[in-house]
Amino acid sequence: MASTLSVSKTTSGREYKVKDMSQADFGRLEIDLAEIEMPGLMACRTEFGPSQPFKNARISGSLHMTIQTAVLVETLTALGAEVRWCSCNIFSTQDHAAAVIARDSAAVFAWKGETLQEYWWCTDRCLDWGEGGGPDLIVDDGGDATLLIHEGVKAEEEFEKSGKLPDPTSTDNVEFQIVLGLIKEGLKINPTKYRTMRDRLVGVSEETTTGVHRLYQMQLNGTLLFPAINVNDSVTKSKFDNLYGCRHSLPDGLMRATDVMIAGKTAVVCGYGDVGKGCAAALKQAGARVIVTEVDPICALQACMEGLQVLTLEDVLSEADIFVTTTGNKGIIMVDQMRKMKNNAIVCNIGHFDNEIDINGLETYPGVQRVTIKPQTDRWVFPETNTGIILLAEGRLMNLGCATGHPSFVMSCSFTNQVIAQLELWNERKSGKYEKKVYVLPKHLDEKVAALHLPKLGARLTKLSKEQADYISVPIEGPYKPAHYRY
Amino acid sequence: MASTLSVSKTTSGREYKVKDMSQADFGRLEIDLAEIEMPGLMACRTEFGPSQPFKNARISGSLHMTIQTAVLVETLTALGAEVRWCSCNIFSTQDHAAAVIARDSAAVFAWKGETLQEYWWCTDRCLDWGEGGGPDLIVDDGGDATLLIHEGVKAEEEFEKSGKLPDPTSTDNVEFQIVLGLIKEGLKINPTKYRTMRDRLVGVSEETTTGVHRLYQMQLNGTLLFPAINVNDSVTKSKFDNLYGCRHSLPDGLMRATDVMIAGKTAVVCGYGDVGKGCAAALKQAGARVIVTEVDPICALQACMEGLQVLTLEDVLSEADIFVTTTGNKGIIMVDQMRKMKNNAIVCNIGHFDNEIDINGLETYPGVQRVTIKPQTDRWVFPETNTGIILLAEGRLMNLGCATGHPSFVMSCSFTNQVIAQLELWNERKSGKYEKKVYVLPKHLDEKVAALHLPKLGARLTKLSKEQADYISVPIEGPYKPAHYRY
Amino acid sequence: MASTLSVSKTTSGREYKVKDMSQADFGRLEIDLAEIEMPGLMACRTEFGPSQPFKNARISGSLHMTIQTAVLVETLTALGAEVRWCSCNIFSTQDHAAAVIARDSAAVFAWKGETLQEYWWCTDRCLDWGEGGGPDLIVDDGGDATLLIHEGVKAEEEFEKSGKLPDPTSTDNVEFQIVLGLIKEGLKINPTKYRTMRDRLVGVSEETTTGVHRLYQMQLNGTLLFPAINVNDSVTKSKFDNLYGCRHSLPDGLMRATDVMIAGKTAVVCGYGDVGKGCAAALKQAGARVIVTEVDPICALQACMEGLQVLTLEDVLSEADIFVTTTGNKGIIMVDQMRKMKNNAIVCNIGHFDNEIDINGLETYPGVQRVTIKPQTDRWVFPETNTGIILLAEGRLMNLGCATGHPSFVMSCSFTNQVIAQLELWNERKSGKYEKKVYVLPKHLDEKVAALHLPKLGARLTKLSKEQADYISVPIEGPYKPAHYRY
Amino acid sequence: MASTLSVSKTTSGREYKVKDMSQADFGRLEIDLAEIEMPGLMACRTEFGPSQPFKNARISGSLHMTIQTAVLVETLTALGAEVRWCSCNIFSTQDHAAAVIARDSAAVFAWKGETLQEYWWCTDRCLDWGEGGGPDLIVDDGGDATLLIHEGVKAEEEFEKSGKLPDPTSTDNVEFQIVLGLIKEGLKINPTKYRTMRDRLVGVSEETTTGVHRLYQMQLNGTLLFPAINVNDSVTKSKFDNLYGCRHSLPDGLMRATDVMIAGKTAVVCGYGDVGKGCAAALKQAGARVIVTEVDPICALQACMEGLQVLTLEDVLSEADIFVTTTGNKGIIMVDQMRKMKNNAIVCNIGHFDNEIDINGLETYPGVQRVTIKPQTDRWVFPETNTGIILLAEGRLMNLGCATGHPSFVMSCSFTNQVIAQLELWNERKSGKYEKKVYVLPKHLDEKVAALHLPKLGARLTKLSKEQADYISVPIEGPYKPAHYRY
Repeated sequence: MASTLSVSKTTSGREYKVKDMSQADFGRLEIDLAEIEMPGLMACRTEFGPSQPFKNARISGSLHMTIQTAVLVETLTALGAEVRWCSCNIFSTQDHAAAVIARDSAAVFAWKGETLQEYWWCTDRCLDWGEGGGPDLIVDDGGDATLLIHEGVKAEEEFEKSGKLPDPTSTDNVEFQIVLGLIKEGLKINPTKYRTMRDRLVGVSEETTTGVHRLYQMQLNGTLLFPAINVNDSVTKSKFDNLYGCRHSLPDGLMRATDVMIAGKTAVVCGYGDVGKGCAAALKQAGARVIVTEVDPICALQACMEGLQVLTLEDVLSEADIFVTTTGNKGIIMVDQMRKMKNNAIVCNIGHFDNEIDINGLETYPGVQRVTIKPQTDRWVFPETNTGIILLAEGRLMNLGCATGHPSFVMSCSFTNQVIAQLELWNERKSGKYEKKVYVLPKHLDEKVAALHLPKLGARLTKLSKEQADYISVPIEGPYKPAHYRY
Repeated sequence: MASTLSVSKTTSGREYKVKDMSQADFGRLEIDLAEIEMPGLMACRTEFGPSQPFKNARISGSLHMTIQTAVLVETLTALGAEVRWCSCNIFSTQDHAAAVIARDSAAVFAWKGETLQEYWWCTDRCLDWGEGGGPDLIVDDGGDATLLIHEGVKAEEEFEKSGKLPDPTSTDNVEFQIVLGLIKEGLKINPTKYRTMRDRLVGVSEETTTGVHRLYQMQLNGTLLFPAINVNDSVTKSKFDNLYGCRHSLPDGLMRATDVMIAGKTAVVCGYGDVGKGCAAALKQAGARVIVTEVDPICALQACMEGLQVLTLEDVLSEADIFVTTTGNKGIIMVDQMRKMKNNAIVCNIGHFDNEIDINGLETYPGVQRVTIKPQTDRWVFPETNTGIILLAEGRLMNLGCATGHPSFVMSCSFTNQVIAQLELWNERKSGKYEKKVYVLPKHLDEKVAALHLPKLGARLTKLSKEQADYISVPIEGPYKPAHYRY
Repeated sequence: MASTLSVSKTTSGREYKVKDMSQADFGRLEIDLAEIEMPGLMACRTEFGPSQPFKNARISGSLHMTIQTAVLVETLTALGAEVRWCSCNIFSTQDHAAAVIARDSAAVFAWKGETLQEYWWCTDRCLDWGEGGGPDLIVDDGGDATLLIHEGVKAEEEFEKSGKLPDPTSTDNVEFQIVLGLIKEGLKINPTKYRTMRDRLVGVSEETTTGVHRLYQMQLNGTLLFPAINVNDSVTKSKFDNLYGCRHSLPDGLMRATDVMIAGKTAVVCGYGDVGKGCAAALKQAGARVIVTEVDPICALQACMEGLQVLTLEDVLSEADIFVTTTGNKGIIMVDQMRKMKNNAIVCNIGHFDNEIDINGLETYPGVQRVTIKPQTDRWVFPETNTGIILLAEGRLMNLGCATGHPSFVMSCSFTNQVIAQLELWNERKSGKYEKKVYVLPKHLDEKVAALHLPKLGARLTKLSKEQADYISVPIEGPYKPAHYRY
Repeated sequence: MASTLSVSKTTSGREYKVKDMSQADFGRLEIDLAEIEMPGLMACRTEFGPSQPFKNARISGSLHMTIQTAVLVETLTALGAEVRWCSCNIFSTQDHAAAVIARDSAAVFAWKGETLQEYWWCTDRCLDWGEGGGPDLIVDDGGDATLLIHEGVKAEEEFEKSGKLPDPTSTDNVEFQIVLGLIKEGLKINPTKYRTMRDRLVGVSEETTTGVHRLYQMQLNGTLLFPAINVNDSVTKSKFDNLYGCRHSLPDGLMRATDVMIAGKTAVVCGYGDVGKGCAAALKQAGARVIVTEVDPICALQACMEGLQVLTLEDVLSEADIFVTTTGNKGIIMVDQMRKMKNNAIVCNIGHFDNEIDINGLETYPGVQRVTIKPQTDRWVFPETNTGIILLAEGRLMNLGCATGHPSFVMSCSFTNQVIAQLELWNERKSGKYEKKVYVLPKHLDEKVAALHLPKLGARLTKLSKEQADYISVPIEGPYKPAHYRY
């Protein structure tokens, strides 16, 4: 079905596929607001814009096509880049953001509510720069763009060696079947497409725990095809976007999807990493009693110190009103557990993939009924009890599916890291500084990202004296902490 | 222009005027969800439904036509009442709620985004039961239905005495001009309309600080035309809906309207009553620095004890990012103060009327430009600086204009008080128990409302022993506190 | 044994009985600090000192003889009063406070760790002004001074009528046996002592929930012998001292007595009135999981809205680490419940009387062993399990027994109410304004108390315009709220 | 003067110098309580006690001689060690803890309120094991024991080379003068004392930020004389003791020292590292308005996200009521800044050394007056204004000087790390695993420490399935996080 999708062109000839171009003006108004909340990105434009460092660089981005991302895209173009973009989640696109970027700034292939087929078609379009191969740089979120190239190269090499085409039936994973199908189709047309891409690629910057985990695995296995910068583990990303972003957007998603009163409710947060900490804090502050499930004893003890109970999911199935998964792992809430929940218990995921919640088990449960209240808010009714659960965003990122994701200010921190990482990869493309490994940004750049966001909040930093700097053995201008410091 | 409005009829002949009847099914789904969150109302249906206490009673309601209100309306009809309804705010209707009630349960005249003309036309329709005068009972929120009848009666008496018609040009207040115009038109057709209404009316129950204030003033002046029950001052209303409701719905409204990150921002809450306390708590918990303005030294000292700064508005005009008015007073933020704010400072009101913020001053400011980002979210740009403020819901109730108001659970507390008050008025309509005064519900009913909401939250009450009850001189079954207890 | 107690005299001839006069200098230093934290009392000295309104007034106070109380006493003397003082709790005296007041300002009969016999001897001394009867005014806390006079008068009247002396064996209550014994002794010497007191007495001001409850009972029964001002229900008392005072002093007492880490613990707060709210807030903020027990459904629902579980004591006996009673009722934690607690569970009371915890049941439990860790911190070991509980302050007010009670600033609010109430009673002593009833202070005085405390915290009040004041129908200078307002 | 100090001996011949041996029984009672709160240490006794791993090991400890430390010492002796101990701070000893350990378990040289001369005499005694040199292992806190040996060795080598004795007048630092004097005296008696120590020493485990910083500097300079384990940077130390410990003990210290009401006050926390985060959280929760000063933009942005203002000290000097230094740096609050503070502003330090606050500047300020309210609570009055500040614990660790330091539970985490580190050093003493470098404990031991503390809090961990563990590429039994994870 994706094959019937067609690309449109702007009057200037730039390609796009979005829901509704008429929303572009609304998108521009929201971008205008967002820019004021994104001081880090605007400072990058001021500092680097004049020298056009990305001149002649092609950047492909696979990252939720929201208003905040629009400001990122226009920062990249303001620095001289040519850009193509897709979303990294079928529900996360804001259609007015996609429209305005498509109209004004970059090639966009994204809309809210893609099918999986459509999703991968968009990813493919985003990476396809026509003649001369693919992008010079990738901005990735979750690693799907990176995955496609790696799987493509692997398939091409296998095909060249053995003539064997990828076999979509070789996997149970529905989404991976689509990926293999896409590569298979491509192979028939151009058997060196992904290797040509690889050869051109300078590197990728990746911003999620999940995507970074994939990259480190590839580095470990020796299969990583190009340098990668792990933006996720910049302090100004993982301790801000993951923590404060989710603290903001979890209740936002719950409210928009269900209007449920959080106060007085019993809420279970599965996982107490940065995302879980943000979610638990938000729920507690809104007046819920919060219970945490954890595997890691250190994180569990942190939860205890904040007054949160640490129990297993089984302990609280019948008691809780709201369940949130934040683990980055899979199989966290299974259909048999959902059956034991209270009527209208809310179940949602704010981790990256939809396999935290057993959607497949739910969809295939005999006799189960799905009642769509509104888009991304479904009631699933079990036949035995005629009671049901409320599932948000089909188990995908609920803050992006049901609300608008993280707010501009915290995304400015994350995206300023992305810009700096892209600059670093591009500037060093010929120096050999970066091998086919995963890198983190140096601490002074991390501190710089933070510093760019302080004036907006009226914060005034103290300056070290020379004597003080010497006493604690740091440069006056930073970095101020050892690499292992945990913040 | 309101004269061109026309009433539709359902197949069963019931009147309505709503935005879009096709949203009725969506409304029903949301009502299904809300019922589970409104245990007090559902318990009323169980307890009182079988005896149909409201048989033959006509109830007119002027109260935000939301999903929660829909459950209230259907509780009244489940108890035997015939009902007509309008919203008490031009922006607060949820159109799917209006549609489903119009289709299934009651006459509704309400849509989101009424003009003031339309608003008063709806109120007039709601009170007009045709032959036999008006309603037996009024459910009021803000007192507009009550006001219209009182002003109508006053005008009729004046007209009878002196032949003088009301003069809309006698007032600067645009909205009051419309009220006088409406009465004037009515007078020409039926010079005893409002007095016929008055004669039939058993009483009103009113649920807002503002409306209650009006009622006490009328009682004081001896002009109150019928008994009134002050539902606002039930503990389970003022200390729940006002406080916890706003704690929930203020950030909800801010997020939906602006997606602004609250953490790190400086927020000013004007007024630290119940509503202000809820707003300040929500903002603080979301990570804002909160500053309170107050007139009352006791409330100011309470703010201090919670770590909030108490300053004057002038002190913080140029420093704050978010301004919220919660006072129930007028003239809290004037246009000259808005001019001194930061670019894109957010200004909104969660008190009852739109005169807390100087909308008139803003609209008539020379050279000011209004840029509508989306409905209820406007940027107003001042010509001198080319900077502007973001005004929410045109200065009206932002939680209802920009979000969906208070969540079901807390509204269940408020509305259970309304149902009990209506029952009380109706059951005692012939006993003479209630004179033309303002009453509050007795404490044991207040405690009952609370008790109906505890099981949903898994709460288990302790029981007093006889010995303990005697020791503190209360009945075992309550009420447990003296009348002056403050909770 | 109390009969062997002897009164000392200062060089100026003033009576006293304290622990250690050498601590007076230390007491003075702490008073110097406290004065800066008690702006309300200091403002009273400035405003009223010059006119010496208490000239010729004798004031007897029964109120924890702490440093804060010392500042109260010296405010009364600064306004011209002659003062005698005792503590209203056997553990609550700070000996350096008693010493300095005894040396410099008033007759004091108080020391930390009185026996009950000694306690009532002190109360008796405090009320005994020699020739001419008792005090003109009483400052009471818990109502023991008031009780003694009422019981004395009753006994005298009975004795006059029937010749019957009070019979200490007529009651099981150990403390009341002592009271009756004391009156009996007194009767033999002077059979009109208490009636002479009554005749002179202008009135009492009382500041606790418990004492006020006693007063209203006497008013109800028609046995109240003199006017009383209920200071407890001033907003600036009950919503400050009870709430914020306990929020401060509960963790203070826990820390000083046990050094236990509160974070991570499960804590049970019995009662969710003002005191319970303060305690629950403190424990939650310190990182405990807090469970509330409640009788009153409204207070229970408030606890739910703050994310606290509401359960019965039985539900959590074996699970909780810390138990706090705050009810003002009796029989809250019984010895059989203590036996089921975890080893080293902490049990304490911050309500007024020690009958909230079943101390008698504990002391008389067969085979129980008491191990005193340090004064006011005892481990009680049950013979069956060889495990035990930690009981604080022998079940009496743990914040005064184990720490120093509420901090100066909040006590300044309470005590400024006391001063104003005493002034009111004294100034109106001949006007007949106050009958033998219980009164609360008018709201404008309540607001004044608050206003006196704002400048110290840097708070700046907003002023109403005439137009605004009219709009909400209040005087510009207040009071700003109706009497029923709950804050 | 230290030369006149004399060592006592127990009947069994063990040396000690403590304040009051009669407090030993009280110490034992408090140890009994503490053991129940220190599950990690008790688990070490259960797991390792039987095999007596420390048999023949001599351990010297320089670490606050509190009740919690007593449980640590008795854990070391329960595992077979012989132990000598001193405090690492002149005010931090709890005399009953010192007494009971001296009587029952180890050689102790410590009392509350040592002079600096006495302090270093105690350190010297602690390291002196007579014949055969010094200890096998050192438990260090702040690094003073390690410093003394390093300075001693340096001086001996210089003396051997050039005959030059250390010159106390070569430094302005009063404390370092004493150290040099002590070494100088020692050199005259035994010019190889410290080198003999060094030769025997297996290693040190160090638990403070400050001490660890010193160790890394020595490693960098190549002067580190023996292996060191950095216990401070175990997650279960730095993110627990520093953060949650200070959150508990800062308000405890403030309350015991000053009884000041924290609610309503303006508090300044200098530094927003782990200690600063704990302090700021405690003050905010207690109702203060909290302002942070920071050098590091990342930490500053974290403070903003929690709603705290970030300003410079100069910005708030005249406005704040409470100042706390937490930086680990020096010269944070200077005497000229103290002069500008409000009357009775409270100034205190919870960082390791007393040079965060300019004590020297204060003491030498012309005409300044010191009024000791009680031990560790001094008012310093400036002559110009006759106003003053309240300085706690003479600028040293206020939580140990004014209260009892961190509570048992969190110290159990820290000290379990110490025990594990000591075991690691001792078990590997011959394997060459540890060179003269600084090491951190491996993550699985860190997780083990956390796991040992969960059951006490009723926490129940979730177990990974094999499939889940593989999915996120960790062993089922952990460690669960990459080394760089920040928690």
